[in-house]
Amino acid sequence: MSLSPGATLRELRERKPLVHQVTNYVVMNETANATLALGALPVMAHAVEEVEEMVAIASALVLNIGTLSERWIEAMLLAGGGASARGIPVVLDPVGAGATTYRTDTARRILEDVHVTVLRGNAGEVATLVGTEAEVRGVESMSIGLEPPVLAREAARGLGVIASVTGPIDNVSDGERTLAVANGHPLLAAVTGTGCISSALTGCFLAAKPADPLEAAAEALAALGVAAEDAAAGADGPGTFHARLYDALAGLDPDTLDERARISEL
Amino acid sequence: MSLSPGATLRELRERKPLVHQVTNYVVMNETANATLALGALPVMAHAVEEVEEMVAIASALVLNIGTLSERWIEAMLLAGGGASARGIPVVLDPVGAGATTYRTDTARRILEDVHVTVLRGNAGEVATLVGTEAEVRGVESMSIGLEPPVLAREAARGLGVIASVTGPIDNVSDGERTLAVANGHPLLAAVTGTGCISSALTGCFLAAKPADPLEAAAEALAALGVAAEDAAAGADGPGTFHARLYDALAGLDPDTLDERARISEL
Amino acid sequence: MSLSPGATLRELRERKPLVHQVTNYVVMNETANATLALGALPVMAHAVEEVEEMVAIASALVLNIGTLSERWIEAMLLAGGGASARGIPVVLDPVGAGATTYRTDTARRILEDVHVTVLRGNAGEVATLVGTEAEVRGVESMSIGLEPPVLAREAARGLGVIASVTGPIDNVSDGERTLAVANGHPLLAAVTGTGCISSALTGCFLAAKPADPLEAAAEALAALGVAAEDAAAGADGPGTFHARLYDALAGLDPDTLDERARISEL
Repeated sequence: MSLSPGATLRELRERKPLVHQVTNYVVMNETANATLALGALPVMAHAVEEVEEMVAIASALVLNIGTLSERWIEAMLLAGGGASARGIPVVLDPVGAGATTYRTDTARRILEDVHVTVLRGNAGEVATLVGTEAEVRGVESMSIGLEPPVLAREAARGLGVIASVTGPIDNVSDGERTLAVANGHPLLAAVTGTGCISSALTGCFLAAKPADPLEAAAEALAALGVAAEDAAAGADGPGTFHARLYDALAGLDPDTLDERARISEL
Repeated sequence: MSLSPGATLRELRERKPLVHQVTNYVVMNETANATLALGALPVMAHAVEEVEEMVAIASALVLNIGTLSERWIEAMLLAGGGASARGIPVVLDPVGAGATTYRTDTARRILEDVHVTVLRGNAGEVATLVGTEAEVRGVESMSIGLEPPVLAREAARGLGVIASVTGPIDNVSDGERTLAVANGHPLLAAVTGTGCISSALTGCFLAAKPADPLEAAAEALAALGVAAEDAAAGADGPGTFHARLYDALAGLDPDTLDERARISEL
Repeated sequence: MSLSPGATLRELRERKPLVHQVTNYVVMNETANATLALGALPVMAHAVEEVEEMVAIASALVLNIGTLSERWIEAMLLAGGGASARGIPVVLDPVGAGATTYRTDTARRILEDVHVTVLRGNAGEVATLVGTEAEVRGVESMSIGLEPPVLAREAARGLGVIASVTGPIDNVSDGERTLAVANGHPLLAAVTGTGCISSALTGCFLAAKPADPLEAAAEALAALGVAAEDAAAGADGPGTFHARLYDALAGLDPDTLDERARISEL
């Protein structure tokens, strides 16, 4: 295994890839800041008039359906088409799939029309898309009918993607290999948009290691998890944790990241 | 009086109600984080294609007109209709009513078409809607022609809502009973969106205590005010206060909240 | 030279001007909070139905094309027309001009149709608009073919505006006089939206000193730079720096600002 979040992070900081994000209103500032803190360059653009031109200069595309509407879906499909044509990695974050038909249908439509590299969601969202039992309340996963590692593997096989199912333990699978990531902190769940941040950072890591998207996706979650561990130390609650999370992402040390990352192959 | 913000907060944290928010771009992240820090689950959804389905699984709805446009108004009316049909509480935050005709008219239209449980605004906004003298500059209340407690009572009677008029002292009235809340801190006025946060938390408390919306509305303001007092202790200004406000909301202790709350019946 | 950021800040805090901002989704909360922390009143409104009425009560207008779409451009032109008719200062932030044709064309269209007082951008954006060599990647300036002070002067002459070109050293020119501002901190570049914040604060300073927009624009950058220096002291990275930046803006002392400002005439 050539897993090395430290090496990928070093590569990312040297190349400073541009990561185009068509994402939701709630987290735009946060995912942009996380991208920047990690060491990549974010750009947020959603106009149908410009997404194809923007994605043409990007190294990865992140699509996030957290606050949908028709024009945004159109833009996501256009940007996704441009990314697929160029062969750059695409991350889809199906926020709230399972909560409303509109979200479920839109996530399915993007999965059909766009060459999605990594589907990054919580267990309920991914289970909804793979067609297994799930309860999603708003944007929270309440329960699913499969064990998370099995869900990740089945989603990868059924949807033809790398499935990155985040939770207390994250499971990332391409249908053959499944990697579990055990980094992180409960405070991540107390801040809105940390799931979206994990999708953004997945885009960053894919841009730095496009040749092995399974490993890149797991490494991204390990990096965020380690940063969360650092941010939680000394935080007084979700607000100061949130501010410190950007400090911790910026402060991630490639030299110690590999030993701190708790990634295991299942 | 069965006023007990502590008991309502305990109930809220046990039930984790889903609070659907159709709100403005400026504060989406902030109201979502405040909702989550308090212990409820936020969901932001504004597409006309999904708001009715989303509100159907929610325990309260918050409508906020801070950054209006036609499709958003349409979505607010649809969501409001769904909430009214289900009988779940609705909070309206008429941000900037009085500053432009568009905002005043939209707030009036929602008040007419939707069964609004609580109208939460500053004095200028509420005075505008009740038709009394007011000066609103942008989204700030500059002066009004009535004393705030009288304004709250008159607004409740005239508009058929519970009027929650926030300011240095908050006044919440159903037209008969009027409750004054004296918690809070001047730094709340130095951060954008704390009014919107008070509306979001009002939605949370209504979801936890739907049987007594007057008390729930006052309790929500007391909880936010106490959290602001905690956040201000040790803050160096509006930025660190803002981060610490989420810490303080998450750290609110139901056991001491009742004695710290300064709610009085006028 | 009557340059005095301290005097302008004192004036601003006394008058509390309303600064109307039609800006991008990513930074709305941040520019509103920076405006408020400095001591002015922000209002965000983008509906074509209300922008003219809103700008009619404002003391300055800030247009920012960071997340464009057709209706927003229409609103910017309407608001800009209203501001021009009233003679209040207008700041244009051409975010990402040079990265896509849509952004470049929109910035040019606003420059043609609206009486823009100050064009505030990074070197790549401004160079694009003045028609000189530039590389813009996403929203970052990568390289330009002119020295920044020359670029500022040429942009001012060519576009008929005050050009405010920010970077490690800021250069502000009306085509005759050019002022260099040497305050600031590298952490400003690690947080999304600090360029947008500098545009918002430029609007605030213009509102307080409309008679000398060149000096006001330079003073605004000095004030932000000094605040950044204060915020960086004690920050652990970009997240805590960001929170502390609002503290520092609120804590700016007019009495010491003049001696701390490093503004020089070139």
